[in-house]
Amino acid sequence: MAELFDFPQVTFVGIQSLQAGDGFHYYNPDEIVKGKKMSDWLKFSVTYWHTMDQRLVDPFGEGTAVRPWDNQGKPDSMEQALAKVDYLFEFLEKTDVNYFAFHDRDLAPEGHTLAETNKNLDQVIDKIEQKIHETGKKLLWNTSSLFTNKRFLAGGATTPFAEVFAYAAGQIKHSLDIAKRLGSESYVFWGGREGYDFLLNTDTKRELDHIAAFFKLAKDYANEIGYQGQFLIEPKPKEPTQHQYDFDVQTTIAFLKTYGLEDTFKLNLEGNHAYLAGHTYEHEVRFAREAGLLGSLDANMGDKLTGWDIDEFPNDVYEATLVMYEFLKNGGLPTGGLNFDSKARRQSFQADDLFYAHIAGMDTYAAGLKVAAKLIDDQVIENVLKERYASFDSGIGADFEAGKVTLKELATYIENKTDEEINATLKSGRQERIKQTLNNYIFSVLGS
Amino acid sequence: MAELFDFPQVTFVGIQSLQAGDGFHYYNPDEIVKGKKMSDWLKFSVTYWHTMDQRLVDPFGEGTAVRPWDNQGKPDSMEQALAKVDYLFEFLEKTDVNYFAFHDRDLAPEGHTLAETNKNLDQVIDKIEQKIHETGKKLLWNTSSLFTNKRFLAGGATTPFAEVFAYAAGQIKHSLDIAKRLGSESYVFWGGREGYDFLLNTDTKRELDHIAAFFKLAKDYANEIGYQGQFLIEPKPKEPTQHQYDFDVQTTIAFLKTYGLEDTFKLNLEGNHAYLAGHTYEHEVRFAREAGLLGSLDANMGDKLTGWDIDEFPNDVYEATLVMYEFLKNGGLPTGGLNFDSKARRQSFQADDLFYAHIAGMDTYAAGLKVAAKLIDDQVIENVLKERYASFDSGIGADFEAGKVTLKELATYIENKTDEEINATLKSGRQERIKQTLNNYIFSVLGS
Amino acid sequence: MAELFDFPQVTFVGIQSLQAGDGFHYYNPDEIVKGKKMSDWLKFSVTYWHTMDQRLVDPFGEGTAVRPWDNQGKPDSMEQALAKVDYLFEFLEKTDVNYFAFHDRDLAPEGHTLAETNKNLDQVIDKIEQKIHETGKKLLWNTSSLFTNKRFLAGGATTPFAEVFAYAAGQIKHSLDIAKRLGSESYVFWGGREGYDFLLNTDTKRELDHIAAFFKLAKDYANEIGYQGQFLIEPKPKEPTQHQYDFDVQTTIAFLKTYGLEDTFKLNLEGNHAYLAGHTYEHEVRFAREAGLLGSLDANMGDKLTGWDIDEFPNDVYEATLVMYEFLKNGGLPTGGLNFDSKARRQSFQADDLFYAHIAGMDTYAAGLKVAAKLIDDQVIENVLKERYASFDSGIGADFEAGKVTLKELATYIENKTDEEINATLKSGRQERIKQTLNNYIFSVLGS
Amino acid sequence: MAELFDFPQVTFVGIQSLQAGDGFHYYNPDEIVKGKKMSDWLKFSVTYWHTMDQRLVDPFGEGTAVRPWDNQGKPDSMEQALAKVDYLFEFLEKTDVNYFAFHDRDLAPEGHTLAETNKNLDQVIDKIEQKIHETGKKLLWNTSSLFTNKRFLAGGATTPFAEVFAYAAGQIKHSLDIAKRLGSESYVFWGGREGYDFLLNTDTKRELDHIAAFFKLAKDYANEIGYQGQFLIEPKPKEPTQHQYDFDVQTTIAFLKTYGLEDTFKLNLEGNHAYLAGHTYEHEVRFAREAGLLGSLDANMGDKLTGWDIDEFPNDVYEATLVMYEFLKNGGLPTGGLNFDSKARRQSFQADDLFYAHIAGMDTYAAGLKVAAKLIDDQVIENVLKERYASFDSGIGADFEAGKVTLKELATYIENKTDEEINATLKSGRQERIKQTLNNYIFSVLGS
Repeated sequence: MAELFDFPQVTFVGIQSLQAGDGFHYYNPDEIVKGKKMSDWLKFSVTYWHTMDQRLVDPFGEGTAVRPWDNQGKPDSMEQALAKVDYLFEFLEKTDVNYFAFHDRDLAPEGHTLAETNKNLDQVIDKIEQKIHETGKKLLWNTSSLFTNKRFLAGGATTPFAEVFAYAAGQIKHSLDIAKRLGSESYVFWGGREGYDFLLNTDTKRELDHIAAFFKLAKDYANEIGYQGQFLIEPKPKEPTQHQYDFDVQTTIAFLKTYGLEDTFKLNLEGNHAYLAGHTYEHEVRFAREAGLLGSLDANMGDKLTGWDIDEFPNDVYEATLVMYEFLKNGGLPTGGLNFDSKARRQSFQADDLFYAHIAGMDTYAAGLKVAAKLIDDQVIENVLKERYASFDSGIGADFEAGKVTLKELATYIENKTDEEINATLKSGRQERIKQTLNNYIFSVLGS
Repeated sequence: MAELFDFPQVTFVGIQSLQAGDGFHYYNPDEIVKGKKMSDWLKFSVTYWHTMDQRLVDPFGEGTAVRPWDNQGKPDSMEQALAKVDYLFEFLEKTDVNYFAFHDRDLAPEGHTLAETNKNLDQVIDKIEQKIHETGKKLLWNTSSLFTNKRFLAGGATTPFAEVFAYAAGQIKHSLDIAKRLGSESYVFWGGREGYDFLLNTDTKRELDHIAAFFKLAKDYANEIGYQGQFLIEPKPKEPTQHQYDFDVQTTIAFLKTYGLEDTFKLNLEGNHAYLAGHTYEHEVRFAREAGLLGSLDANMGDKLTGWDIDEFPNDVYEATLVMYEFLKNGGLPTGGLNFDSKARRQSFQADDLFYAHIAGMDTYAAGLKVAAKLIDDQVIENVLKERYASFDSGIGADFEAGKVTLKELATYIENKTDEEINATLKSGRQERIKQTLNNYIFSVLGS
Repeated sequence: MAELFDFPQVTFVGIQSLQAGDGFHYYNPDEIVKGKKMSDWLKFSVTYWHTMDQRLVDPFGEGTAVRPWDNQGKPDSMEQALAKVDYLFEFLEKTDVNYFAFHDRDLAPEGHTLAETNKNLDQVIDKIEQKIHETGKKLLWNTSSLFTNKRFLAGGATTPFAEVFAYAAGQIKHSLDIAKRLGSESYVFWGGREGYDFLLNTDTKRELDHIAAFFKLAKDYANEIGYQGQFLIEPKPKEPTQHQYDFDVQTTIAFLKTYGLEDTFKLNLEGNHAYLAGHTYEHEVRFAREAGLLGSLDANMGDKLTGWDIDEFPNDVYEATLVMYEFLKNGGLPTGGLNFDSKARRQSFQADDLFYAHIAGMDTYAAGLKVAAKLIDDQVIENVLKERYASFDSGIGADFEAGKVTLKELATYIENKTDEEINATLKSGRQERIKQTLNNYIFSVLGS
Repeated sequence: MAELFDFPQVTFVGIQSLQAGDGFHYYNPDEIVKGKKMSDWLKFSVTYWHTMDQRLVDPFGEGTAVRPWDNQGKPDSMEQALAKVDYLFEFLEKTDVNYFAFHDRDLAPEGHTLAETNKNLDQVIDKIEQKIHETGKKLLWNTSSLFTNKRFLAGGATTPFAEVFAYAAGQIKHSLDIAKRLGSESYVFWGGREGYDFLLNTDTKRELDHIAAFFKLAKDYANEIGYQGQFLIEPKPKEPTQHQYDFDVQTTIAFLKTYGLEDTFKLNLEGNHAYLAGHTYEHEVRFAREAGLLGSLDANMGDKLTGWDIDEFPNDVYEATLVMYEFLKNGGLPTGGLNFDSKARRQSFQADDLFYAHIAGMDTYAAGLKVAAKLIDDQVIENVLKERYASFDSGIGADFEAGKVTLKELATYIENKTDEEINATLKSGRQERIKQTLNNYIFSVLGS
């Protein structure tokens, strides 16, 4: 078959030249990092919605994208929908990415009823299934769009309109069937419109009761059909809604525990969503990991001075390092991966920009992985913590941790110690030194 | 006794003049609102730290406050500490406020050991106890400052230093003794430094384990001494820390549920903290109410364009109305009140500004209460919700709520309905109309 | 002619009922405010792009709008384009609005060349011209869209691509011809993409030189054809770009003065843009007024907790009052008006919501005007300032203002005065009292 | 003389170990970069207020700093004030920093009149003058604190109180005398309280007129005494005020041009201030450079998710690289330097943290300088721009730049070209590739 993309196979070249674009500079699939191949740690995934479907529209402008499938049928035709599958698989092959992800609505045009829509979708799924079989590429996760169509203007599982709610349920059913069929590693719920635009016209309690029940119905159905992929919730604080119910990691934990869903779900986290909630990405990953809920990661980046989701391809090695540190402490992501929920900039409108963007993103996380591995090998952070919390490893601190002291006993222990004695036990937090050490690690590991 | 403050008794005058300052224009203590006296609904509270102690310092400038007790002894002397108690009670009397609140450290200077510090404190508590007895004024809540003293530079209950942790425990013990002795309605924990400044030098999991155990020790001690006031956590996302563990309502719920503390605590909410977390105040109050955790309210206001806590006295009647709406839906605050965690502006440095500021704050919430009561009387919001969610009151919606349908049944129900049929069930959210109706209510209720 | 909109003529009803929707509650066109009819002060304007064209799309969802002209031809057909003109003029009539505003691209579909596009446009302009003639309605301002079409992906006047620059110039030429022909009171430049997405690929100096020269060419052409409407720049800090060159009022002043354009332009300000730049709306209006550059106002509102432009119809009477205060101090807006650059919420998708939204917006600014007029009548703010700055009205202060003292003389004057003497001249800023007075004025004026 | 600080002389060690703290890893004073010694490019400066005076107070806590001069007299004694001078000069020596900077109020305690205060100050200045003479260290800039003392609660040059204004003038006079005497390279005005807290009690126009006249008096006096250092304004958007008049670079340009001060001043920029105004640091430096106003730089860093000024020592090499790129394009900073307006974190309270923090900051900017130099050597950015704007180097683009075409001619030129023809001239912005290239440069230059 003739090549579809006019772009060569991307391979590891190291830092031959400093100009980006001639191959991977850091991502070396077969390189061993902490006992495992880089490609086994870094389960990168291409997103259908950004890479295949995104026309680089923004709220003030039409799409700018130039795509080789533009002349493969009308935008919303089945003909083009089927052609795009070939492009996807060639793109995966050429970028050496093993996974992909999609929403149901990314793949095929809608019909006039859900039944018709499902029928269109299934034709594309048939082709994808065959391609998976042929190539060994895998579906990292799939999901349902309960936010694009007009009917979801007030939500899918939290809509005030029962017909729409039923439609959302029908869509999820079909998506779970697809997940089962294609062996999707996880199944994601991003509640883009599950929230509110206006508090005064919203029965927040009733809506949350609805979505919790909806999730249970979905899980029951997954069990019924024997789909065992990991269910994931993807938090985001807002946009398009003014408030999204899954605001951040902690809000989602509160929800899961309130409704007894903590064993059903893990989390799919995204950097840009973290910023919008007022957190760093590493913060969100840390707290999900420590709660045992780190499921999968969206590899993208935002702009902390910009108040909306920009889904930029990741290029900040500081952030990638800290996220990969948490990732390694988590033992990687058994049922998750690094999904490029990232789009080329609106001015990077050419098809080759899709390649450059993925190369940049893959190199960024590969670089982060290498630095994080070295930090752990040298126990840099671990030693900081060990020294800093040492007073809880013996004496009154250890007694407290062992549950051996009461408040009154602690009071008696301390009440006649002088300020000087107590202050003498304080230690510097050493933030400046630690951050400089981090710089040294990054440049040393990546420069050599 | 001669008057301490050169300001007359404040009484209700209604809108005689439009210039503020001559009395209450909206707060009419004996006026009946929804079957109860306004003064019974609105348990206003004066804060020791802002009204008595705050010198109107900011990070770039020394204090500007001129206070009548400035010549009652050195700032940190016991003499001045005792004199200030008289000022507080006269202030309560003249502003017709029935409650007050304090941190332990607000009241008396520290000694060289906790024992000495407690001794100083107890002298002031003795005087306060006597004043309470004489005047009938009450303690809304007290708390411990685990953030001002240098020793708490890395937290109190979450400090990495065991001696400091023990100190924090000793302080809480003494504060609970005071709460018991003075009949404090609630006891508040604001974790100002319970969080992190730098993720990489912080063992977040160990710190959260510590604070949860600390809370249990505190509750055990309260039970031991028979103190039955409501324990409250006050969420704030950051400042002084880069991240505070009790970020917002939902984060605190996640924490409480993770550690089995949900029956021990309710929440004390504050408007300015809500904004810093990216929420409106009414949002936080709504979600706490619906979780059954609405304990008490800090009556203050921030500036949504300003990234730090300004603790302005409330003057926004829109916000006050929406908060009072949630408040009334909650049946008021049985063990809580409206605590002015608010300070006069640094340029409002005169003693009479303390009066003007409290009058403005009290009038603002009294106005909000009156509008909210009228909105509920007329069932304005309730009717919006009733109509909007009607499709879940019968048919497939009701069946779903009753747990009678599966995902598959919902899919079957919907899959052959057309888009036109489904879209015909959508209703306008009517945000513009509802907001204008809200305006009409505010002006109509308050103008007459 | 049969009615196009199924909505009755909107008239002033006062506060008959508190539920919005039955007419104007505050906007009373013939009511005299400060010697002039309300309708003469408040030159409201309907925007073509929001009210006629906006489908209520957002970045995550398709349009939800239901519009009576949906079956008047294909969305992009000339047939529908012409039909919409009738709807606009009936809408103006029924809402009693006298002005409207449009971008060139709002009115008619584009052709394959600018010449073809202009031809399409001119057909609609012909019809509008006739309608203006028939109805007496007027064009507040028109503008050119140099941001929607793909070609403007890197700007119009600041694009790096000369062909696109020429296209932008051609578009402006035609728009100025239209402005002349329709008697547009002003001509607006909103530089939506005149800025940068990425600093490193942008020659900021060269781009600013280009746009300044572009503006001069446009002014030369306006002079050539005898178009004397006021040129306006509309500042916005970002969105769609990461940085827009006309960030805010002051940035635009710096630009105008750098390039000698300060006599050519005034400013068109918008509330939501102000927030995105970190300012209140009244701040921007104040500084434009004092610089003699207040040209026109966009009457909309944002959400200070939301980081993007939401263009909500105004409903905040606090903001409307403060903006109307500046407006009255400016003597109104001789060549400008109050343009509803506001869109119905995505959930307010019905055609009647367009009416409810405009009614709410008109009432909000009418309310603000009434309160502001009363504040000025009573000299509330003026008296605050007079008292506060009194020390510059005589003595050393007046000498300084008169240019009679040197730095050394000021030093000599002060150097032996004591802190006590100096501090005795400080006065409280009275923020709390003034804000409460403002509340009293709002409720008193609007409640009666 | 015995060593005052228990810390060894800091020297360049390169990357011997990855743990920070044993010397400079990147700052190599004698290394030649673009024809000049690194120490000649990087005129680092230690700030008196942070390094000598800052007790690491925050709004919720007392100081934590442990400083070796704590037992050299009472905090506010002349004895301690004089002792600290020795510490400063040893600190400069040990860190190999050649410059320092101070506010008048940093150096000595205040008296009861300005005359007394000046007398105290002059004793310290005498000692500093002698030390400068002995060591060859230099004063980068000095300034006056018109914000800390209570009297400046409403500003210094913009205060509504004439006595306070005169005091401010007297202070500036004395500071200019000091600048002259010590050979200060620049003189800085940071208008911390020159702005407003509350728009309604502020006569913004009158205040701006005052400060402009004040600046002219200051310049006249500098001329009179023959002080020829560069006057600098330091923009900041807010904090402590709600709005500071010198919001950002552009606002300051507007002010300077409005009042005819553009030849009197350049700008002193700071990273953290940029973020608070919604800009990146490199943005502010770029626009100041292109306006010919880049005077000096504060080397610090903020946190883009934090809404207040944290003044962290710089450690972000991305930002340092982009700032150093602008710096090199400016030919460095002839009368300015890189002033560490940075403080150790409150938890980094030990004296050795002052050293670690400065080492980290110096290494960060040295790293940035090296990368920026290599980028310029390879013409990376220059080539991007050259290619991107090529269409303005000939043809219609060049004609436009040469002022040879009218709007009408541009319209005629373009109006019959097709969309296809025009779109074919668009080029990708290549943001992803350029950012990855930047990564490659950073790691390559710094890793070797």
